[in-house]
Formats: sequence, C-alpha cells, structure tokens
Amino acid sequence: MNKGFAFLAGGLVALAMAGTAIGGSHEDKAAGAAQSAREAQMGLYAFNLGLLGDMAKGTVPYDAAAAQAAASNLAALTALDQSRLWPEGSDEMSIETRAKAEIWDNMDDFMTKGDDLMKAAAAMADVAGNGLEAVQGQIGAVGGACGACHKAYRAPEN
Amino acid sequence: MNKGFAFLAGGLVALAMAGTAIGGSHEDKAAGAAQSAREAQMGLYAFNLGLLGDMAKGTVPYDAAAAQAAASNLAALTALDQSRLWPEGSDEMSIETRAKAEIWDNMDDFMTKGDDLMKAAAAMADVAGNGLEAVQGQIGAVGGACGACHKAYRAPEN
Repeated sequence: MNKGFAFLAGGLVALAMAGTAIGGSHEDKAAGAAQSAREAQMGLYAFNLGLLGDMAKGTVPYDAAAAQAAASNLAALTALDQSRLWPEGSDEMSIETRAKAEIWDNMDDFMTKGDDLMKAAAAMADVAGNGLEAVQGQIGAVGGACGACHKAYRAPEN
Repeated sequence: MNKGFAFLAGGLVALAMAGTAIGGSHEDKAAGAAQSAREAQMGLYAFNLGLLGDMAKGTVPYDAAAAQAAASNLAALTALDQSRLWPEGSDEMSIETRAKAEIWDNMDDFMTKGDDLMKAAAAMADVAGNGLEAVQGQIGAVGGACGACHKAYRAPEN
C-alpha cells in the first residue's frame, strides 16, 4: 500500500463521512452519505446557477467568461452519474432530508426530470458566453426544470 | 420574468446562500459562499473516491459499472472551473476554513496541484472499468494528488 493510498484510506474518506452517519447499520450510513452528497451537488448547482441568475436579473454585471464557466460547470454537474445518490431508505420518512418518498414510487418520472435539467443546463452552456440576452433567454428553462422536480419531490422546509 | 426564473430567483439561490454569509459585506458573503462551495466540491470528490478506495481495499466488492461511474464523476468534478472558489479573503485568517493563506502566496503552485489531481482522476477514469487491479494501480496516484495539496495548503482540523 503506497503513501497516496494510505492517505486516502485514512484521511479523505473519513472526512467525507464525518457527520453523515445517522445510525449504525450499513444502510443507514449509505443513506446519510447519499443525503450529504445530494446536498453538496444541489449546493454546487445553486452556486453556479446563482451567478447566472444574478447576471440575468442585473444584480451582477454580465461577464462572458464567468457566465460560460458557471454554465459549463452546471452542465457538467447535472450530467454526473447519480446512481448512488438516491438509495432506498433515504427519503424523508427514514432520515433527515426533504426528499419525498414519492421519488421511489415514481423513479422513471424522477429520472426524466433529472434529464430535463441536464438538457436545459446543456442548452445554457451552449449560449451563456454569447451575451446577457442569451443567458436571460435560457435561465427560465433551467429554473423551471429545477422547480418541476422540487414541486413534485421536495418536501417543504421545516 | 417567467415562472421558472421567478422560482430560481426566489428559491434556489436563497437556499444556496443560507448559512454561508459570515458578515454583512459583499466580500464576506462571497468568501462564505466560496467556502461552502469548496466543501461541497471536496465532499463530492470524497464520495466518489471513497467508493474506489473501498473497492481497492476490498471492503466493497469491485463492480465495473459502479467503479467507472465513480471515476467518471471524479474526473468531471476535478475538471470544473474553480475560479470562483478561491477569492481573496477566504483563507483561515479571514473566515472559518482550513484553507491556508499560503494558497494565495503560491497560486501558481496551487493551480498546478489542482491540475495534477485532474490528470490523476482522468487516468483513473480511463481504466476504472477494466478490473480491480486497474483501480488498485491508479488509486495511489489520485490519493497522492489529494494529499500533496492538503499537505501544503490545508490547515490541521481543530
């Protein structure tokens, strides 16, 4: 076992899992880790989309390179494989999360909504460097894709 | 302003920024948001790398599709544009973070270390579906790239 691997085994993984386990079982730990990863992914969506939204609203001046970077990031993030993010037992009835149990009853629709977001983000990435009007023209489709999934599958904030 | 955009403006962005502001100024808010986004990104690195590490150690059975998905995710995450993640004033002297001030004194080296991680993750993604030995053969390089940057630029945990 080389040095890099020993570092990985001892450090990074422990860090990632700190605070995510909500119970003792393997399933509980997987659900907690998935929930943390979902929050991280949604947070990065919002970090990138937030800049585009601020530009669209005019609260941040449009900058072609910054808009393109944010849009390309968002497109890459929405295209990540999510197969480990939504394990059975990671709904709001089971753990501290806003993910409704309806997700698992409607997984095909849920995945379709994820694909819709990916397509909207890809379309944004195609044009975000082309000017403020291009961002304004596509931001509604991206926000709408976020909202469609949240409306169906995210519980209200406590 | 269409419906999707209104949703975005009112919902997602507020969510993303909740809890990240550590002061009233624009700079403080940007630093806090950057720190939250860094934690999210590192968390997703670890979520994906953790599975590869568990497979390499033998604590999780090797699965070609799962290994490939994790490695492809990690490669995509390490290739994200990070230009908004490291603003001036987001070091450990300024905010609650483990990011050492040395990052900003050695930005070229810091960026090189980021590129090293991206290359190691890309090399992992090239082979992760080819068998356990391929994962074991590349995991040290990925962990080593993580460790090289942490050793130089991450303060000890409190």
